[in-house]
Amino acid sequence: MDTILSTITSPADLKSMSMVQLTQLAEEIRERLILGVAKTGGHIGPNLGVVELTIAMHYVFDTPTDSFIFDVSHQAYVHKLLTGREHLFDTIRQPGGLNGFMLRTESEHDSYGAGHAGTALSAALGMAVGRDLAGGTEHIVALAGDAAFTNGISFEALNNVAAQTKRLIIVLNDNEWSIDKNVGAIAEYFHKIAMNSTYVSLHDAAAGFVEKIGGKAARHVVRRAEEAAKGLVGRGMIFEEFGISYFGPIDGHNLPMLIETFKFLKTQNKPVVLHAITQKGRGFQPALEGQKKFHGLGPYHPETGETKPAIQKTYSEIFAETLTKLATANDKVVAITAAMPNGTALDLFRPVHPTRYFDVGIAEEHAVIFAAGLAIKGFKPFCAIYSTFLQRSFDQIVHDVALQKLPVVFCMDRGGLSGDDGPTHHGLFDISYLRGVPNLIHMDPVDEDELADMMYTAMLHDGPSAIRYPRGTGPGVRVKEQPVALEIGKAKVLKGRPGAEVVVFGLGAMMAEAERFVGMLEAGGFSVALINPRFAKPVDRECVDRYGVECGLVVTFEDHVLAGGFGSAVLETLNELQIDVPMVRVGWPDEFIEHGKVEALRAKYGLTAEAAAETCRGALEEIVEWRAENRRPHLSRR
Amino acid sequence: MDTILSTITSPADLKSMSMVQLTQLAEEIRERLILGVAKTGGHIGPNLGVVELTIAMHYVFDTPTDSFIFDVSHQAYVHKLLTGREHLFDTIRQPGGLNGFMLRTESEHDSYGAGHAGTALSAALGMAVGRDLAGGTEHIVALAGDAAFTNGISFEALNNVAAQTKRLIIVLNDNEWSIDKNVGAIAEYFHKIAMNSTYVSLHDAAAGFVEKIGGKAARHVVRRAEEAAKGLVGRGMIFEEFGISYFGPIDGHNLPMLIETFKFLKTQNKPVVLHAITQKGRGFQPALEGQKKFHGLGPYHPETGETKPAIQKTYSEIFAETLTKLATANDKVVAITAAMPNGTALDLFRPVHPTRYFDVGIAEEHAVIFAAGLAIKGFKPFCAIYSTFLQRSFDQIVHDVALQKLPVVFCMDRGGLSGDDGPTHHGLFDISYLRGVPNLIHMDPVDEDELADMMYTAMLHDGPSAIRYPRGTGPGVRVKEQPVALEIGKAKVLKGRPGAEVVVFGLGAMMAEAERFVGMLEAGGFSVALINPRFAKPVDRECVDRYGVECGLVVTFEDHVLAGGFGSAVLETLNELQIDVPMVRVGWPDEFIEHGKVEALRAKYGLTAEAAAETCRGALEEIVEWRAENRRPHLSRR
Repeated sequence: MDTILSTITSPADLKSMSMVQLTQLAEEIRERLILGVAKTGGHIGPNLGVVELTIAMHYVFDTPTDSFIFDVSHQAYVHKLLTGREHLFDTIRQPGGLNGFMLRTESEHDSYGAGHAGTALSAALGMAVGRDLAGGTEHIVALAGDAAFTNGISFEALNNVAAQTKRLIIVLNDNEWSIDKNVGAIAEYFHKIAMNSTYVSLHDAAAGFVEKIGGKAARHVVRRAEEAAKGLVGRGMIFEEFGISYFGPIDGHNLPMLIETFKFLKTQNKPVVLHAITQKGRGFQPALEGQKKFHGLGPYHPETGETKPAIQKTYSEIFAETLTKLATANDKVVAITAAMPNGTALDLFRPVHPTRYFDVGIAEEHAVIFAAGLAIKGFKPFCAIYSTFLQRSFDQIVHDVALQKLPVVFCMDRGGLSGDDGPTHHGLFDISYLRGVPNLIHMDPVDEDELADMMYTAMLHDGPSAIRYPRGTGPGVRVKEQPVALEIGKAKVLKGRPGAEVVVFGLGAMMAEAERFVGMLEAGGFSVALINPRFAKPVDRECVDRYGVECGLVVTFEDHVLAGGFGSAVLETLNELQIDVPMVRVGWPDEFIEHGKVEALRAKYGLTAEAAAETCRGALEEIVEWRAENRRPHLSRR
Repeated sequence: MDTILSTITSPADLKSMSMVQLTQLAEEIRERLILGVAKTGGHIGPNLGVVELTIAMHYVFDTPTDSFIFDVSHQAYVHKLLTGREHLFDTIRQPGGLNGFMLRTESEHDSYGAGHAGTALSAALGMAVGRDLAGGTEHIVALAGDAAFTNGISFEALNNVAAQTKRLIIVLNDNEWSIDKNVGAIAEYFHKIAMNSTYVSLHDAAAGFVEKIGGKAARHVVRRAEEAAKGLVGRGMIFEEFGISYFGPIDGHNLPMLIETFKFLKTQNKPVVLHAITQKGRGFQPALEGQKKFHGLGPYHPETGETKPAIQKTYSEIFAETLTKLATANDKVVAITAAMPNGTALDLFRPVHPTRYFDVGIAEEHAVIFAAGLAIKGFKPFCAIYSTFLQRSFDQIVHDVALQKLPVVFCMDRGGLSGDDGPTHHGLFDISYLRGVPNLIHMDPVDEDELADMMYTAMLHDGPSAIRYPRGTGPGVRVKEQPVALEIGKAKVLKGRPGAEVVVFGLGAMMAEAERFVGMLEAGGFSVALINPRFAKPVDRECVDRYGVECGLVVTFEDHVLAGGFGSAVLETLNELQIDVPMVRVGWPDEFIEHGKVEALRAKYGLTAEAAAETCRGALEEIVEWRAENRRPHLSRR
């Protein structure tokens, strides 16, 4: 049987539908989401929460003339289903398929891409001002979760809205969750409004009325409800203080009410915010019961919500367990997360050391300065922030931490290619943006046990440090009971000796590939040294010197862009040592990498042993010639 | 005659003073500030505004046991005068002298360094939480200007305060200015409170009363005034919504009132904010009349406030004039500043194109996303943000601009060593943090006319670009009437041809030094090619190839750290081209550079033609040998 959903080729198809059809459509979408994401994995919870909101928005507004900007945009699946991508939905987050976020290159209906929280209001304001300057009349609608309002950028945007445009529609999608339960004053504030019982009854009455009558009269009711709500929370309305008219709270699952309200807001000649209360995971019992788990996850059983049991601990879990252990032995150790207790696995730390655990909200800049303050008071703050999100804290790392030489430890989860999430989430820049910062150490473990050692090293080190580890699991090396301190800036030689014909550096997660490459070389008769550099900064100068000066080829492997990365650091070191040796750097090229499977993308972009061997062919042949002539391969130091 | 000020060796000396003495001290400090900064230059306006506040704070609290955290900390001169640095005050911002900001290494009374706005609340909260965890009883006092509250980090901190500590004192130093007049909803909100006339009379009455009676009764009055004030602004108090008790507004120049109020706040077992209204430049008529000019400036006449007339236009002025011209010819050009209309010279643009000028407050993250939104609507946003402040927007440059290939132009004023302001203001990292970002172009003009050409090029380019230019004046080259478009990624050969023995790249502001170096080489009989690379990214591969492959030495000059900088990019290019040639990179070492004169610091750290010649000695000698043997210097391509 044809569903309504399958007949929709563009949002225009919604316009002629009856409320009954729209309501059925909402049900179909929920089913499609639950069944589809069960196979692909993805952000099921957030999308189940915005089904009615998205339908109502597309019913009332006209994209792509009007623009929707979704904060983070992991809640854009419904929007994708309604904008001609229903037939592709099973490919979401799959190699070559739909991206899990909005993407301008994917559809004209995706007016603004995102993946990091807090950007929607600023982008929407820019678009609104652009429209005003051009004399346009189209609508700009930003949809942002309550968690986005714990981020300072949202605030910076709010501070500018009233002065810069008269027409902007902000939808506050309030489900009291980001990925974990929201924290801080703003979350409490929204909660206080939403829970006001007098309002709730008024709102329910209004909703019932709207269902009966619809149209103009309903608009009047909405306005009355809105005024009443305003009276209740009085001048406490933060949005009103910012010169933005506040409407709500409203039931974010009441389709007729949402439609009438959007029709009304469309006519307003002032910036407005609609506060919609939604339920994350609505319509899928397992998601309602496990909000955190069902924020975003891998494939699951579409009825029970069961997921495949983990067979191996992730780097995140190893990190959290190690930190818990370090904190037990050292009461100066504290943990900081920016709204990612689950993603960073710090929810394992929290119950053991509740007073030394800090979730500061989606506030990466504050997190770092807060850590600096703690460090000044003698603590050892471990800031667990994904590599890609730590980009937000670059200035604070320079200005507050490194310049003051404070012993803050940055634990950069998801360092390297993140895979399915795509370019907004790849952590491919942290060596190049951190390597220029004085006083900072950059560590890169090749396995779980080394991660623990590096954390221990960082704890003992009297200065700032960063440790980067990849998403998911590592090689599965057992973590020894007592971690050991590593010598700062000292590489570890795994095989071979000075004088080896080829010297291979395998940084962090690329060690496995480096090992394969070494195997290929050895099979080809070359003598090889394999080195675990451990530190992208400082590079082990003495090791580069000793091994570089006598070899015929240096090869570096890194899960990072080549421009300014680890290979570049080795190249600089060779240059400073005036060592003149052929060198091949293996890493990501100067372009944004799409989403996909890590293995496949590495193969596509040449981050494999085979590709490296191909690139090294000339230098290897030269080594063979030299060997035949019984010469040392290397040309010696300048 | 000995002044009171000259007898103060530590804040403890204040404690025994009478109100008469403290009042005289305030006068002496004003005079010292006006006369001292007249000679050294510096942030005179902000410091004249906090004389009484700082005295009252030191009278009531006990640093270094208690901690003061000053936002930006350019208003810490009075604090420096009261904490044993009076005898050094004439050295402020002078080479080897006091830093213009708080500096932990300068005094135990400087508990937290700063230079970028918006960090004080986060740092103070970290220190307060650290104190709580350690069971301490000391006081943490953050002082932040109203402008700091336009920055998102302040908001992120406010969101966390109430949940994380019971004791934190925030002083809102409200003078309605940052460097320029503040913008946005928050500024209006503070203004509304401060201007409430009913309150003002009440407050004056209270103040008078305090002067008469002092002590406990005064405390009662303060509380009454506070309650009344609260009533007036009702639940509109944003701070109260954040769970922080609001006190004020209070006259920030009424010393007895301030002292009584701080004594009272000291006893509070809850986070509090004191809203103090101050007058920037108080006590110095020229500063009151020219708030913008006297925020921070060079030496001036201590009576008239006259400064030396500029004899040459700065890069900032050339930038603003050029942008004004471009905007006149192209109605898609818009200008964005983050509270720096004066520093970036965009106040020259504003009157000509008022609707296309946007000051978004100290909100560098928002500025960039806002620009991205405008670009989506077909505009060409020029974001003028100092290199060091743009560090705050790194994630937005990656995530919002570069990933979406939007044609936003980043005009990075103060690129390179900033001189007197010191390490918080040097712009030494923008090549290394931007070079890894795909799709981005990085341009570096050698003179004023080339800056104009690069802006024109950026305007025509359909993608993101960054242009960096130094603080102050350039070589004084006349800007031609009509700028020309440069070929993207194309260097300009100024002298010499392929086959030259030495190839010198002089990036941007270092061109003059590169030219001197070339002169020295030529005097020594070497054939030299001098190249203006124009682009740090993309590097002109073809040029590096053609000139590199035949020469005996490549030398790069850059006003940037060496790690990951322009020289590193050239090194990578040579490596990719498999060109094997000695290379010397001239730039800043891997440490934070102190404040001082640019020339002197360049000499100290080896960024001179002489130092380069010394480093190149070996390679140059080799060239001479080769020349004698009639060989081509270069070893050829691998």
